[in-house]
Amino acid sequence: MSTLITNGKVVSTTGVIAQDVLIDGETITALGAPGYFSEEGHQVIDATGKYVIPGGIDVHTHMEMPFGGTVASDTFETGTRAAAWGGVTTIVDMAVQNTGGNVQDQLAAWHDKARGKCAIDYGFHQIIGGVDEQSLKDMQYLVQNEGVTSFKLFMAYPGVLYSDDGQILRAMQTAAECGAMIMMHAENGIAIDVLIQQAVARGDTDPKFHSYTRPSPLEAEATHRAIVLSHVAGNVPLYIVHMSAGDALNEVAAARHHGRNVFAETCPQYLWLTLEETLGKPGFEGAKWVCSTPVRSKDHDPDYIGQMGHGHQADLWKGLRMNELAVVSTDHCPFCFKDQKEMGLGNFAKIPNGIGGVEHRMELIYQGVVAGELSLERWVETCSTTPARMFGMYPKKGVIAPGSDADVVVWDPNTTTTIGIHGKHHMNMDHSAWEGWVIDGKVDTVLSRGTVLIRNDQYLGTTGHGQFVRRGLSQYLV
Amino acid sequence: MSTLITNGKVVSTTGVIAQDVLIDGETITALGAPGYFSEEGHQVIDATGKYVIPGGIDVHTHMEMPFGGTVASDTFETGTRAAAWGGVTTIVDMAVQNTGGNVQDQLAAWHDKARGKCAIDYGFHQIIGGVDEQSLKDMQYLVQNEGVTSFKLFMAYPGVLYSDDGQILRAMQTAAECGAMIMMHAENGIAIDVLIQQAVARGDTDPKFHSYTRPSPLEAEATHRAIVLSHVAGNVPLYIVHMSAGDALNEVAAARHHGRNVFAETCPQYLWLTLEETLGKPGFEGAKWVCSTPVRSKDHDPDYIGQMGHGHQADLWKGLRMNELAVVSTDHCPFCFKDQKEMGLGNFAKIPNGIGGVEHRMELIYQGVVAGELSLERWVETCSTTPARMFGMYPKKGVIAPGSDADVVVWDPNTTTTIGIHGKHHMNMDHSAWEGWVIDGKVDTVLSRGTVLIRNDQYLGTTGHGQFVRRGLSQYLV
Amino acid sequence: MSTLITNGKVVSTTGVIAQDVLIDGETITALGAPGYFSEEGHQVIDATGKYVIPGGIDVHTHMEMPFGGTVASDTFETGTRAAAWGGVTTIVDMAVQNTGGNVQDQLAAWHDKARGKCAIDYGFHQIIGGVDEQSLKDMQYLVQNEGVTSFKLFMAYPGVLYSDDGQILRAMQTAAECGAMIMMHAENGIAIDVLIQQAVARGDTDPKFHSYTRPSPLEAEATHRAIVLSHVAGNVPLYIVHMSAGDALNEVAAARHHGRNVFAETCPQYLWLTLEETLGKPGFEGAKWVCSTPVRSKDHDPDYIGQMGHGHQADLWKGLRMNELAVVSTDHCPFCFKDQKEMGLGNFAKIPNGIGGVEHRMELIYQGVVAGELSLERWVETCSTTPARMFGMYPKKGVIAPGSDADVVVWDPNTTTTIGIHGKHHMNMDHSAWEGWVIDGKVDTVLSRGTVLIRNDQYLGTTGHGQFVRRGLSQYLV
Amino acid sequence: MSTLITNGKVVSTTGVIAQDVLIDGETITALGAPGYFSEEGHQVIDATGKYVIPGGIDVHTHMEMPFGGTVASDTFETGTRAAAWGGVTTIVDMAVQNTGGNVQDQLAAWHDKARGKCAIDYGFHQIIGGVDEQSLKDMQYLVQNEGVTSFKLFMAYPGVLYSDDGQILRAMQTAAECGAMIMMHAENGIAIDVLIQQAVARGDTDPKFHSYTRPSPLEAEATHRAIVLSHVAGNVPLYIVHMSAGDALNEVAAARHHGRNVFAETCPQYLWLTLEETLGKPGFEGAKWVCSTPVRSKDHDPDYIGQMGHGHQADLWKGLRMNELAVVSTDHCPFCFKDQKEMGLGNFAKIPNGIGGVEHRMELIYQGVVAGELSLERWVETCSTTPARMFGMYPKKGVIAPGSDADVVVWDPNTTTTIGIHGKHHMNMDHSAWEGWVIDGKVDTVLSRGTVLIRNDQYLGTTGHGQFVRRGLSQYLV
Repeated sequence: MSTLITNGKVVSTTGVIAQDVLIDGETITALGAPGYFSEEGHQVIDATGKYVIPGGIDVHTHMEMPFGGTVASDTFETGTRAAAWGGVTTIVDMAVQNTGGNVQDQLAAWHDKARGKCAIDYGFHQIIGGVDEQSLKDMQYLVQNEGVTSFKLFMAYPGVLYSDDGQILRAMQTAAECGAMIMMHAENGIAIDVLIQQAVARGDTDPKFHSYTRPSPLEAEATHRAIVLSHVAGNVPLYIVHMSAGDALNEVAAARHHGRNVFAETCPQYLWLTLEETLGKPGFEGAKWVCSTPVRSKDHDPDYIGQMGHGHQADLWKGLRMNELAVVSTDHCPFCFKDQKEMGLGNFAKIPNGIGGVEHRMELIYQGVVAGELSLERWVETCSTTPARMFGMYPKKGVIAPGSDADVVVWDPNTTTTIGIHGKHHMNMDHSAWEGWVIDGKVDTVLSRGTVLIRNDQYLGTTGHGQFVRRGLSQYLV
Repeated sequence: MSTLITNGKVVSTTGVIAQDVLIDGETITALGAPGYFSEEGHQVIDATGKYVIPGGIDVHTHMEMPFGGTVASDTFETGTRAAAWGGVTTIVDMAVQNTGGNVQDQLAAWHDKARGKCAIDYGFHQIIGGVDEQSLKDMQYLVQNEGVTSFKLFMAYPGVLYSDDGQILRAMQTAAECGAMIMMHAENGIAIDVLIQQAVARGDTDPKFHSYTRPSPLEAEATHRAIVLSHVAGNVPLYIVHMSAGDALNEVAAARHHGRNVFAETCPQYLWLTLEETLGKPGFEGAKWVCSTPVRSKDHDPDYIGQMGHGHQADLWKGLRMNELAVVSTDHCPFCFKDQKEMGLGNFAKIPNGIGGVEHRMELIYQGVVAGELSLERWVETCSTTPARMFGMYPKKGVIAPGSDADVVVWDPNTTTTIGIHGKHHMNMDHSAWEGWVIDGKVDTVLSRGTVLIRNDQYLGTTGHGQFVRRGLSQYLV
Repeated sequence: MSTLITNGKVVSTTGVIAQDVLIDGETITALGAPGYFSEEGHQVIDATGKYVIPGGIDVHTHMEMPFGGTVASDTFETGTRAAAWGGVTTIVDMAVQNTGGNVQDQLAAWHDKARGKCAIDYGFHQIIGGVDEQSLKDMQYLVQNEGVTSFKLFMAYPGVLYSDDGQILRAMQTAAECGAMIMMHAENGIAIDVLIQQAVARGDTDPKFHSYTRPSPLEAEATHRAIVLSHVAGNVPLYIVHMSAGDALNEVAAARHHGRNVFAETCPQYLWLTLEETLGKPGFEGAKWVCSTPVRSKDHDPDYIGQMGHGHQADLWKGLRMNELAVVSTDHCPFCFKDQKEMGLGNFAKIPNGIGGVEHRMELIYQGVVAGELSLERWVETCSTTPARMFGMYPKKGVIAPGSDADVVVWDPNTTTTIGIHGKHHMNMDHSAWEGWVIDGKVDTVLSRGTVLIRNDQYLGTTGHGQFVRRGLSQYLV
Repeated sequence: MSTLITNGKVVSTTGVIAQDVLIDGETITALGAPGYFSEEGHQVIDATGKYVIPGGIDVHTHMEMPFGGTVASDTFETGTRAAAWGGVTTIVDMAVQNTGGNVQDQLAAWHDKARGKCAIDYGFHQIIGGVDEQSLKDMQYLVQNEGVTSFKLFMAYPGVLYSDDGQILRAMQTAAECGAMIMMHAENGIAIDVLIQQAVARGDTDPKFHSYTRPSPLEAEATHRAIVLSHVAGNVPLYIVHMSAGDALNEVAAARHHGRNVFAETCPQYLWLTLEETLGKPGFEGAKWVCSTPVRSKDHDPDYIGQMGHGHQADLWKGLRMNELAVVSTDHCPFCFKDQKEMGLGNFAKIPNGIGGVEHRMELIYQGVVAGELSLERWVETCSTTPARMFGMYPKKGVIAPGSDADVVVWDPNTTTTIGIHGKHHMNMDHSAWEGWVIDGKVDTVLSRGTVLIRNDQYLGTTGHGQFVRRGLSQYLV
């Protein structure tokens, strides 16, 4: 079956061009000037007045992630379906090796969770929670045989996922040898845990102390340290996940100014939300926004070295514009308020960490376009094309081009969307971090490998349509 | 007539994808997966094993430029023909208003020189050498009516082209009002002229003193000053031309880190040549490489603030990789050695400033790809796509996409090219700055608006094929 | 006659030590542990509970300075007497060569004004308002023969005092040759004059526009440029006068981090006053605080490159603490409100530039000690010892040591002083920039070369006591 | 007994002034202009043509330090005697709490080692090798009761002295509460240990690999991290010991630019020696120069972020000049070659870490004065006055002033000294790190609390003359 998308404006990383898109089977076969292709014999999608963009790619999700005695509330089935609703056609989820676990077994377990369940295509990063001889060998095995070419390490959560600097150095050396990307949760978790213990001992147990005990200098410090270690390890490419702070961003920018292959992503919560409006709400409601790195105060800590006089949000938007931040992901890790978030009643340290957002990223970053924070081109670049290049999926994914998978989103800029559970979101959550937000624009149509998943506000996809994406090495090394 | 380019690998700013390109008349009408289009009815260009790239765009040339009592030796006819040989399908030349001249008259004079003479398309920037009430009004007129949307100012050459900081500020304010781009020759010419007078008075008259009297701190200083003035003027976009020094680059990088719309270009001579190997040759031969900004010493001045420990060339290549440098142009301004360069025998200050290179830019930057200094994608981006976006010609120019002008180059990576006059270059020069350089790869075929200009080592173009390009505002503002 | 100061705590740059100070004639002859010297035969000054400090040195005053059609209202007689009241025992005043004037003649004229009139010792810097062959020779002459070893240049006030970058470079080269210090009024006056003309043309003529038309980036820019030129000139020592802005300070700090002999002074008005509280007062009252560089807004311009997130004042106090700012002077240049400041009614650009403060510097910086902004040691260092070393007067001046001039101030920390004309100040002004300020501490006793000038709230000095100080080269080069 | 030092030039931190110094008993009682004091009744030391300086203070020594299965070869008796020979009149030695030990017991043990043995006065810093509830209480006890106000932590040597970031944070918080200074061994020992294991496993066991496995980025990283932690802990004052690298220095300079109370010391070995000339000698001889931080290569690692284009040594000298480095100490930790250094034959990791140098610091830094690297004033400031202020001993120590301890050195600039064991050094070592160095100038006379220890090349001191110095809080906080 073939599909022709007509009359739309295709947005690429370099501009907006009126083009018709011809899809045959699972693949884009041709692009033509408007009207070039006859409509005959094709299913026609009229995109008049709309943007046509490569499907969104969310390279940081945690479906069914065990955390702190509970499990993230979206399964691969519910989570990928919500993603599709939000214009996302590929996720890269985090397979987890906990300290002491076996990497290949754990990857297999993640495959078991996802296989046959996904609405859209999916890949895996591998979290290495226990660097040792075996896991280092497994890293090489995964790169060579499993299409898993990126490994996430943690500088936080000692005893669970934490690697010390020697372990990090060794994993980075291994990655450097096999061309893999290191992804880093960059927070000084050892120092943070002291601050948490002290806060709890003082009786400062409300959700907002989650943020106060994770001050931005400890994110910036870990970012700096990861960059130094990546240099010592032989200039392995390094990708800092969920960056939330302007001072951390400055470290990445400095490294890039020195020509280093250092990259970073941020998430919508850091671009739009502040501690004061979320975690700081009275009572326990702030628990909804407990995630790590944390949502931060409106203002910088003015005494800290390296600030520039804007707030964190202005710094992050600026970073997105200037490609100091390469990617927007969601770090989607949903927990219900009831029973899950409530595990931390009376002790913020026991609140499961995570915000659900896989459904809203394309909307929230498009809102940045409307607000003048970044261009249409950077929206597509940070949400689709760069994720694909960064993680070895281009040009199969991330671009509208002949030969590419027909993962295409038609975006309607002429309407609005109300977000949140009352807006009937599709994530398996009993609340929303974005309840009631009204966003300009809307997902109109979503195709995944040529199949229409969303159209006319209906989900037309099927469980199990999504396939595993074997990824190559990062193509984004400068 | 229609043309089909088959079996080639199309290089874009984000990757390399095997695609066939269909051209109808002057325009690209469609792109298809390999083999998608029938060859029937089309002139077929088989690009097997070759790259297909958007035609090169050189946004900084000086054809027939009067300078220092002589005139640059390439006419629009000879210069654009040489450009075509080198894979360039558009130039943007510098129309000159000297101090005291009338802007609109001067632009008209440049139109007269170019009209009916060019092998390829051409646009104009307007040099404003005399900022006053009239020229400020003319700037607005040119933006609104003439398709000239960028204005070059000089911080050097007092009495000829120089603007003082107050004039610069006023021109920047005017540009900010009408959305135009300010291009800046950033050297502190007032201080440089003192150094030149002192050198000549000392008897230091050899060509190498051209570089010694223009030390990089005076380029970096002017770059910094231009950035500050552009901020005071209301954040007008600023584009620093022919950047030659790592310390100047650092100023641009710092501004960009602060989110400023500050851009820069460099030229092949700064990426590949050193003072020691060129200007420093015995006798007067060094005159061949007299240009401003100058070719610089291999090593930094280690005492100067802001150096990073690499040489200028390493810094510039790094800047190209990281998009601190957005564009490569040539600053093509050729003079013959005999009679022209020789005007400076006994006094380097009288050597006409300029190097001819419009023919070799694509080759010399591709050589950077071969040398591992930058990617194929950045080659296309810095030499074609970004120039088009930066100066308001996208998507007509700078991209292979349906609807775009069929300015296409087929590049053969499987052979070598010998550069220089003995390699039979086509610029109207009696010498070459690059004599004897052997470059990997070669221009195979060049199309301009669908017409084949170069094929099988033959020039098939016609004088006057080239058309004036009315440009819009810069599309590269972040 | 001999004097013994007993029971006081002597403050030096490194600490506070209880010592008795013995003075014989004009000179300190010995220091002893408390009680070491017999009181017999000496005039005894009991400093119990008080600080004993070297007399204040104000290295930036403009007595009887012609400016904008009028003359600064303090003569050397009234101005130095007021200085003595304020604990100052040496000034270094600015002799002025206007553009076109003769340096030696002008220096002689300044000698004529001061000779026989001064209450305290005085030296001269020489302003070079017209750099040419003759004035460059005169600079050398003054260093070798006249005890004038520092030269002030202006990057502002074109046509009056302004030097262009070539002139600056040449003067710096000359200073480098003879070991002299270059002092710089660092503001981009060419750009500022455009902003002033535009403001006046718009009808923005109130005093506050004096500050708005001199934005801090144009001070920082000029500071940066002066630093670069001083490097190109052969690393001549450079001293930036009356620094008012955090962004300018950052340029000095960066240069110092690179080991450069770059220094700066600030003045009390920049440490304590804000535009909003002074220039911004309703009506014309703000004219009292019109000086250049201007009193600035409380907050930085957050968009400008190089800000650190504090306000200008916090940055300047920090700079004083960390020795990024070496000296506090006053730039004392008083004008009466009536008839003088009023020349600018209806046009801020015609308000004579200057604040009178020579009497209050020691008090206002001591208040910084009380406020926790800097230490007692830095008070003495920035207000006396470093000025003496910076300008070649040490150890004759600036230290309490055997052999030094007996310029000594006894400071009473146990009382308060009310500043201003209603507090009966002694400057020849009909208003005060500091009216009504209550300062902790007070000048108790002042000796100049052994002679008591101030004691028991009485002035005991004589006109003409003050002698010219022939200065050597700066002793502060690192 | 009283002593009069006549005709000398007293060097202070602000200048050189001819003064006579009168000593009564253990104390300086008066300073006079030359000839002011009658020589009658005094032991007279004629310092004609010589400098008179406050006795050297070495704030970083390890006498009888257990390390790696052996003990540093100087006892308090031999080590302090050698110090006296070198113009040092006070040391502050490192009392060690190893992980698991009891702080107060260990301090008592160090008192036992030193009591009655020292030629000169001595104080203690306390190393905290095991941060826990008890040791944190002990820190407070030592500050309040024991005259020990500074605590050294290690970011290296896990299992022996290492503190993790949480322990560091807690110790810093405690220090912040009681006003104490944190001293930091700043190297990322966790990463370094991986590099060491890998080098040994590869067979890279020669002494030079000691330096290669401790690359400067890992010193700079730890320095940065310590600075961040000190900020999070409430801006506790922080003093980085034995800084060896320009990139580490940059971190300190950046912190100071932000107004932070961050300080650093370096040692003569980092200012004068290079890896190539020492550790890199053929065979095992390089073991003589194994110390941590290591002696470094002549050139920077050019790829590392934050380098400035000079070598480490030029950076360190610059840092000393500009007060980015506040202090020169020795980190005196001598081991004999035979039997001690030889423990590392075949495995550099087993070579005891340390260089003996307490005797040569004054000479080696004076040589910097002769070489034009710093001023006489900075020699005295970095080697005596600042150490006294930094560690709470001023004005008892570190200054020539009435009331201060009569710790005085007469320095003869008119001769030379040959250093090394063949120059008959007095440290208990069978070799010298400085063998054969010829230094301008020489220690002429040394007085400790009024007692002559060295005169006419003879040691006149006595074992046990030296007293314990109870120190107050740092007086150097800006």
